[in-house]
Amino acid sequence: MKRIAVFTSGGDAPGMNAHIRAVERTAGKRGLEVIGIIGGYAGMIAGHFEVLDRIRTANILDRGGTVLKTSRCEEFMHPDGRTKAAEQLVKHGIDAVIACGGDGTFSGAHFLNAEHGVTIIGTPGTIDNDLSGTDYTIGYDTAINTATAAIDKIRDTADSHGRLFFIEVMGRHAGFIAMDVGVATGAEYVAVHETLTDIEVLYQRIIAQGLDSRTIVIVGEGDELGGAYELSRTMEERYGLASKVSILGHMQRGGSPTVRDRVLGARLGAAAVDALLEGYSNVMIGEIGGSITYVPLRETWENRKQVPQYLLELAHLLV
Amino acid sequence: MKRIAVFTSGGDAPGMNAHIRAVERTAGKRGLEVIGIIGGYAGMIAGHFEVLDRIRTANILDRGGTVLKTSRCEEFMHPDGRTKAAEQLVKHGIDAVIACGGDGTFSGAHFLNAEHGVTIIGTPGTIDNDLSGTDYTIGYDTAINTATAAIDKIRDTADSHGRLFFIEVMGRHAGFIAMDVGVATGAEYVAVHETLTDIEVLYQRIIAQGLDSRTIVIVGEGDELGGAYELSRTMEERYGLASKVSILGHMQRGGSPTVRDRVLGARLGAAAVDALLEGYSNVMIGEIGGSITYVPLRETWENRKQVPQYLLELAHLLV
Amino acid sequence: MKRIAVFTSGGDAPGMNAHIRAVERTAGKRGLEVIGIIGGYAGMIAGHFEVLDRIRTANILDRGGTVLKTSRCEEFMHPDGRTKAAEQLVKHGIDAVIACGGDGTFSGAHFLNAEHGVTIIGTPGTIDNDLSGTDYTIGYDTAINTATAAIDKIRDTADSHGRLFFIEVMGRHAGFIAMDVGVATGAEYVAVHETLTDIEVLYQRIIAQGLDSRTIVIVGEGDELGGAYELSRTMEERYGLASKVSILGHMQRGGSPTVRDRVLGARLGAAAVDALLEGYSNVMIGEIGGSITYVPLRETWENRKQVPQYLLELAHLLV
Amino acid sequence: MKRIAVFTSGGDAPGMNAHIRAVERTAGKRGLEVIGIIGGYAGMIAGHFEVLDRIRTANILDRGGTVLKTSRCEEFMHPDGRTKAAEQLVKHGIDAVIACGGDGTFSGAHFLNAEHGVTIIGTPGTIDNDLSGTDYTIGYDTAINTATAAIDKIRDTADSHGRLFFIEVMGRHAGFIAMDVGVATGAEYVAVHETLTDIEVLYQRIIAQGLDSRTIVIVGEGDELGGAYELSRTMEERYGLASKVSILGHMQRGGSPTVRDRVLGARLGAAAVDALLEGYSNVMIGEIGGSITYVPLRETWENRKQVPQYLLELAHLLV
Repeated sequence: MKRIAVFTSGGDAPGMNAHIRAVERTAGKRGLEVIGIIGGYAGMIAGHFEVLDRIRTANILDRGGTVLKTSRCEEFMHPDGRTKAAEQLVKHGIDAVIACGGDGTFSGAHFLNAEHGVTIIGTPGTIDNDLSGTDYTIGYDTAINTATAAIDKIRDTADSHGRLFFIEVMGRHAGFIAMDVGVATGAEYVAVHETLTDIEVLYQRIIAQGLDSRTIVIVGEGDELGGAYELSRTMEERYGLASKVSILGHMQRGGSPTVRDRVLGARLGAAAVDALLEGYSNVMIGEIGGSITYVPLRETWENRKQVPQYLLELAHLLV
Repeated sequence: MKRIAVFTSGGDAPGMNAHIRAVERTAGKRGLEVIGIIGGYAGMIAGHFEVLDRIRTANILDRGGTVLKTSRCEEFMHPDGRTKAAEQLVKHGIDAVIACGGDGTFSGAHFLNAEHGVTIIGTPGTIDNDLSGTDYTIGYDTAINTATAAIDKIRDTADSHGRLFFIEVMGRHAGFIAMDVGVATGAEYVAVHETLTDIEVLYQRIIAQGLDSRTIVIVGEGDELGGAYELSRTMEERYGLASKVSILGHMQRGGSPTVRDRVLGARLGAAAVDALLEGYSNVMIGEIGGSITYVPLRETWENRKQVPQYLLELAHLLV
Repeated sequence: MKRIAVFTSGGDAPGMNAHIRAVERTAGKRGLEVIGIIGGYAGMIAGHFEVLDRIRTANILDRGGTVLKTSRCEEFMHPDGRTKAAEQLVKHGIDAVIACGGDGTFSGAHFLNAEHGVTIIGTPGTIDNDLSGTDYTIGYDTAINTATAAIDKIRDTADSHGRLFFIEVMGRHAGFIAMDVGVATGAEYVAVHETLTDIEVLYQRIIAQGLDSRTIVIVGEGDELGGAYELSRTMEERYGLASKVSILGHMQRGGSPTVRDRVLGARLGAAAVDALLEGYSNVMIGEIGGSITYVPLRETWENRKQVPQYLLELAHLLV
Repeated sequence: MKRIAVFTSGGDAPGMNAHIRAVERTAGKRGLEVIGIIGGYAGMIAGHFEVLDRIRTANILDRGGTVLKTSRCEEFMHPDGRTKAAEQLVKHGIDAVIACGGDGTFSGAHFLNAEHGVTIIGTPGTIDNDLSGTDYTIGYDTAINTATAAIDKIRDTADSHGRLFFIEVMGRHAGFIAMDVGVATGAEYVAVHETLTDIEVLYQRIIAQGLDSRTIVIVGEGDELGGAYELSRTMEERYGLASKVSILGHMQRGGSPTVRDRVLGARLGAAAVDALLEGYSNVMIGEIGGSITYVPLRETWENRKQVPQYLLELAHLLV
């Protein structure tokens, strides 16, 4: 193995730059050349490749986003796109690839391996934490701290006015962000599909809290009962309850990564390079209970990762 | 003069607590008793008064929101409500009042003075900075820094994806926040009524920027051409241009105040107490060019404060 | 069991307030009364007890420090002091105690149990992370993020000037903070006793880095080769190498806790109450690999906890 | 005028990058070429020049430090050094220069103009705010916010322990930072030469505060009565008073600039380019009372700027 490539794909996540830096530094120490693919699978198809070295990866550790850019690529979902991508890898003499992203990224990686025999390893880079095979994904810790800091600010104004607030956090179909943030902010209720089955239950909970005081309900995006706007509207229409809405939005994706995300990104980057040298392919590198793990790419999306039971209990217990 | 009262009203703003603390400390040094009215004009009508002392105002300097709570009070807009409020002030032996808030607060104060002869002074507490008679209002500096920090994070992800973003900031009908934040974040365009008269102009500007790279448009709330959602939808419908939207929302009201807001809040609090002792009434205490100013309450909302010309020029020049 | 007490002792740590709140909320749900002991063991001896309820523990979750105050208490190290403390517990009808702190706190708790049969459980509250029986201590995550954010700022100026900096972080005799922060900031060297045995090695490393560019050396406090000032002076005297020194100091103890510290503090607080109800005593409640653990107090200081090997490797590999 | 140069010199300050960006963007709009001189006067002597364009100045607005590097240059203090520097400017066809820094930088600029007729304009870039001719210098607002945020954290631990703290902030011989930070943090005393003439006065003040509670004394660096360490030692030796010391240090120079520093840096950058085109030379561009000002370089250091009287009064009044 002489030359490897690394890229980021799907939603960007804080810590991806620490990860890229670690891949470059480790590969350098192991005598490998490293190519950065710009813009995820779209860049792979188009041949947007650049050499990574110490200078290119200096001073990026503390920056959000990804210096390699990212994208969601339609073309790669078709066999023709993947064939073009595989040809580019051959053309540039790339022996193995590290793909940092989420389940869409890994699904693409899996097919690239299955159809074209590309040696490829995945690393979990997404703020959503919805990947089996690792306790935490790169970017999750920063996202929950960003959301929590924003909600701490909203609580100032909610307290001053004694208002009911519905605050929507990211997390796609997984309730990780909402639950951790709910416990961390002392929210009066966390409305995700794991906890909320009935709008009446939520109403009773709000009433029990007292309408004169501040009430904060954390809402996961994409839940069956609707997001923050829907819940607010339903409360108004069905019970005549006025409320304010805040959608935290894209700021949760950015910002300087926390220590955990930098160290996790760095550790998984180093481990990914070494895993390639040890002959691994078609697996995701994760961290469970403090140890490095290797899980087949397919399992990362087939096994649905569950929100820890203790978070559900704490959110209920500590109100 | 033996006993004065202080309250906060309208939207809460960071620095109000530093202001309350300064009123209490200064009054104490001047031999006055201080009463805190809880919950703005609603609390005044209801007689929610409490004695403020050193202990009550300790450790609040660095906190967002207002320990005296706030509200928007319908009842006070009617003469009957104001009569009840004036009776409460008499009943509690209050000789003069300091009202911290925005134009609605000052309008109420003006009528309380005109109808019932209440000695009352206003201090500018609002994140919107839309009050004549002061360079800056308490809370504005924190709000623009909070918004800027959030947009710095969004830029991480916008850069990584090469996306067009419409980001809506607060400011009601005034473009102050949008313009300062636009210059501070290097936004490609700031869409407020001072700058934007035509959707076609905005489109041409975005096109000129190049559709492959990140483009950030800061949008003021309540502008005639619509907020961020409306602009995004129009761009899609009229020109087929995809974009993302972020409404920064209520987090802009909260958070630990900046040094400027703490010092301004403290300075105006001390000056308000001394102004009462010097016989002032029915004026707002402001700061212009570094000096304390006294402006009749009526002028604060009758004279529309303009966004400084240099901000409009910089936003255009530095793109 | 009807009435339990909780206190914080030794150095304060962010997350202690989340912990206190969780103890109060959980105990309330379990039908127990909760007493807060003010000022650690000194307060226990002096009988500074206060009832904790929902209102007392509201709005403290996001604050650094500890609302129960803390101290280092000489008198409690003597049997007489402990006898007085035990008498106060009896006098106030306290059936069991939760002690949040570090090894000194646990040592005191152990003797209180051994000599007076007090039912007592420890919870790990220290920024140093130097306690066996838990992956992380309450406060550690905030401390490493605070230190990292400060060093990110120093790097701005170090980069601008091309300087050599020795930056000293906390951690007593343990290298946890230094190692995590070193990896997170991309420091050129981390000088703790686990890595540094010889000043000449450090000099060679600095030289290899190149004297024209910025070099950051993270130094643990209390290391055998000296702190940051000593290393700077030695480099000057022995090799004529100029450098700057920064001691991050007490700011590392404070600040709003991170999500991890809030959630860990909350989880261990709830678990401590339930452990008392299940009959546990003389153990520390920790979290290992995501699960709650119970370890005899004595083991927390007798088993020296080691810095994870992977951090030592990453610090060396990623420079 | 066809080609201008810009450089940063002396201590770096947050906002310098916003300033550099504004010089480049404005010059571009005015049809001028812009050269960046790397490393201040040392780079001018050595001929380290590089062309600045839109790409080089993209994404630097929110970063601390200075992308043009900086230095303190011995050689430039001698006529020979200045001659070499002037020759480099001629050799590179540079018609005029913008020098961002403090009094040392301006003194150098003054001589370069006097001895070699170089057209040169200064802009105030220093965290110390000790330059006449401008209300605020670029970097000052960030520095006081950074120091205040750090002291907010220290107050958590000071409160928890009831300790006396001496905290030293930057500011060279000027008390600006100490006074603004003292008012913003509610410090019990601010010890700078403007306020402190006698150690006994300080002791009495501390005693009056009560030894059981937290007491924070902000100390300016380089004061006649000594820095924080000296005051702490004197208090111990003379009065047997134990205390803790924190030197905030170099972190005060770095970090992402506040809105005020970004906007001030941008505004002065645009104004400096336009001032050159209008024929100005040998002046510093400042901002007073919201308007751009032009003051002869010599006056910036000959007129000693005073800390505003109102800060001295507030610090005394609000304790």
